[in-house]
Amino acid sequence: MSWLKEVKFDAQGLIPAIAQDHQTGKVLMVAWMNEQALQHTVAQGKATYWSRSRQALWHKGEESGHEQIVHDIRLDCDGDVLLLSVEQKGGIACHTGRYSCFYQQLQSSDNGLQWQATEPVLKDPAIIYGNKGEPQ
Amino acid sequence: MSWLKEVKFDAQGLIPAIAQDHQTGKVLMVAWMNEQALQHTVAQGKATYWSRSRQALWHKGEESGHEQIVHDIRLDCDGDVLLLSVEQKGGIACHTGRYSCFYQQLQSSDNGLQWQATEPVLKDPAIIYGNKGEPQ
Repeated sequence: MSWLKEVKFDAQGLIPAIAQDHQTGKVLMVAWMNEQALQHTVAQGKATYWSRSRQALWHKGEESGHEQIVHDIRLDCDGDVLLLSVEQKGGIACHTGRYSCFYQQLQSSDNGLQWQATEPVLKDPAIIYGNKGEPQ
Repeated sequence: MSWLKEVKFDAQGLIPAIAQDHQTGKVLMVAWMNEQALQHTVAQGKATYWSRSRQALWHKGEESGHEQIVHDIRLDCDGDVLLLSVEQKGGIACHTGRYSCFYQQLQSSDNGLQWQATEPVLKDPAIIYGNKGEPQ
């Protein structure tokens, strides 16, 4: 599989993968893939990442049901970042119950710059995951 | 600067930063920032990265003129990826002379899956950079 040889995994055998909503263009999340995760993603058409905390394959949505159906996979010019165009099932990508993981926006305030949460929690994570939590 | 303490730099003192076109929503590139690069970016409103190859601050566009005017900076849920919404000067983010670095798309062909270049070179890199090349 020569296409796989063009993907540059880092010293830990990982590559960052950006998931972008294929309809809205919003960036949903960034996670990591190893070779096996990328092969699963390509073969199944659903995003599979490598959970660094669990050191195991992470089939996105395996607990939450919030799967990502992959429409398109792109590789950047130097081959070390992937970009996935996905359909986000349930409209929630983030383990906090938000649409996107990038909900903290740098804003000026009376106390100087601060990260402000700018997106609502659409579903309580305790309801999404029970007590199990989501892998990172 | 408490906002800076919430940014989780890795063991090398770096964090990946995604640059996204504020108008089209297209993902343009991913580069790395250290603390100084992020502070420069915030202070100047123009994207400054850390060049891993040169081990130096990389003021995006310093050679090419293809600066990125920063409209918005976001941080993801676990604080280890940045997302910049930018105005891409010159309409070229990639050192290959393309609009976006993510121009290689995984496509099926008679020889199986292949990365296919899907975006045109808008300007010859030799003209953009002369013989100096662009830092990575």
